[in-house]
Amino acid sequence: MKERALIGRLLAPIARSTAARGLLDDAAVWQPPAGQALVLTKDMMAAGVHFLPDDPPAAIAAKLLRVNLSDLAAKGAVPQGVLLGLGLPDATPDAWIEAFVAGLGADLDHFGVALWGGDTIGGVDRVTLSLTAIGQVPSGGALGRMDARAGDTLYVTGSIGDGLLGLHALTGEASVELLSPDERAACIARYRCPEPRVGLGPALVGLAHACADVSDGLLADAGNIAEASGLKLVIDLAAVPRSPAGVRWSGADVARRLALATAGDDYELVFTAPASAHAAVLAVCQRFGVRVSAIGRVEGGTGVVVLDDRGRPLTVDRAGYQHG
Amino acid sequence: MKERALIGRLLAPIARSTAARGLLDDAAVWQPPAGQALVLTKDMMAAGVHFLPDDPPAAIAAKLLRVNLSDLAAKGAVPQGVLLGLGLPDATPDAWIEAFVAGLGADLDHFGVALWGGDTIGGVDRVTLSLTAIGQVPSGGALGRMDARAGDTLYVTGSIGDGLLGLHALTGEASVELLSPDERAACIARYRCPEPRVGLGPALVGLAHACADVSDGLLADAGNIAEASGLKLVIDLAAVPRSPAGVRWSGADVARRLALATAGDDYELVFTAPASAHAAVLAVCQRFGVRVSAIGRVEGGTGVVVLDDRGRPLTVDRAGYQHG
Repeated sequence: MKERALIGRLLAPIARSTAARGLLDDAAVWQPPAGQALVLTKDMMAAGVHFLPDDPPAAIAAKLLRVNLSDLAAKGAVPQGVLLGLGLPDATPDAWIEAFVAGLGADLDHFGVALWGGDTIGGVDRVTLSLTAIGQVPSGGALGRMDARAGDTLYVTGSIGDGLLGLHALTGEASVELLSPDERAACIARYRCPEPRVGLGPALVGLAHACADVSDGLLADAGNIAEASGLKLVIDLAAVPRSPAGVRWSGADVARRLALATAGDDYELVFTAPASAHAAVLAVCQRFGVRVSAIGRVEGGTGVVVLDDRGRPLTVDRAGYQHG
Repeated sequence: MKERALIGRLLAPIARSTAARGLLDDAAVWQPPAGQALVLTKDMMAAGVHFLPDDPPAAIAAKLLRVNLSDLAAKGAVPQGVLLGLGLPDATPDAWIEAFVAGLGADLDHFGVALWGGDTIGGVDRVTLSLTAIGQVPSGGALGRMDARAGDTLYVTGSIGDGLLGLHALTGEASVELLSPDERAACIARYRCPEPRVGLGPALVGLAHACADVSDGLLADAGNIAEASGLKLVIDLAAVPRSPAGVRWSGADVARRLALATAGDDYELVFTAPASAHAAVLAVCQRFGVRVSAIGRVEGGTGVVVLDDRGRPLTVDRAGYQHG
């Protein structure tokens, strides 16, 4: 498809905000509201690296949007608009492009986010996508990885590890055969189309200290909070929430439970808050219908320590976590 | 190079603004100033499509930045910050990455623009780049393609066609052998490292009606203004400014002069302004040391009409412009 047709016939109809200028102008013009800071994030995804080439194009578009909205949610920001970078091999079928744009448009509508602009290029070897998402948060209120404080409780939303099980199911990994067909389908849906915590994130402003989304894996993202805050995070493995599929797959097996906590693509929020905010944290999560679990605490020191069911630290080496 | 090293060792040192949060936080947080609208633009570039794979990496980085700054200048916006998307084949040499980042950092400093964040991915087949640039313009003042008015004079800055000659010189096209070595070098430098009109663009706010940058070619970009404004642009070919190299290469040859006006990568500004603003347009261009040429006018109608040296319209067909 020629760029002109792609923009005029497919993208312009889903870029309805004034800021997009009908995609006639190569740049968006947006008036930010007074009293708000902007949060800006960008994620790239490539076929065969971040998604499977035969994933449904609408699901790829939704995932591209949602991983960015998850970044905004982790900062407490309400998403406003996005710029799309679309790198397509010259042989990309029109039907693929149409399904991708339709999926993006539907998901933008679902989240009330505007398509402001972007760029499309041909001549690449594999579908290569980029999305820049811009959100707003009351000035001075943005959450971040660096604001944990010693004594904070560590929380995580939802359940951890279904992204891994979904990927296993898609790639035919044998161990997930013990899951029911419904459980496998639920994990695949979650891997392909995560549910960013766009409502809850902004509601945590003023309650949470540090916050991150679980994209690289719970332990890695907790590690990022620990490093950025210059503190130690202690996590009780027994408290890490699992879905019914996650419980069935891992049971009491420490290695599998650690695998769930090490894999990425969950797009939950991991955050810290002072003990004084505990009741308020539970209340706000309930208000948004989001399960929340206290999974540990913040202490002086560095790194992440995972405790087993008897409170003993597990040590990590190159092969993964092991009993110390 | 691992993503962690790339971010921590190379990118974090050039991301010094508060908004970047030391690249520790997966998103930038920026407080826009009151009374300003934001202009947001995004361009992608891929090796072998938008630049030659053996171009110097610092020049590729500078061009990626500058094509986006040119988009902002065409809206009258002062650039503030960028988000970088860096897709690298796994075998990319560290020295290439280091030179790319060093070049980007130097050019960001040159233009006083902050690196706010971005994303890096591996696993792609060719270097695939994306940059989102954000600028600011007094609220309500943004220039655009859609604001030309009948009776306006059409202007273009600098000279047109050196980008084409630079590309010809790099690819060994025979016709550029008549240029002197210095002329060829100047055209190559201009192709590789355009000079966006970042000072002049914002100074045209309040003077110019419509404005665009010359990225796709003067006639194509003028055509975008005509289409977005719902008007006709009439261009005197004799008035289209050429560099000494352009004059030497094209002389009085209409086909070559049209080729210069049809090729892209000039990154000049093409804009319209009312006759009453003519003296002010000349004065502001002089203030920024930028050559400016009145090359035509805006009329009722549609499309772009190019007049030959005797004022006769040239007609265009699939093979290019011809005498009508």
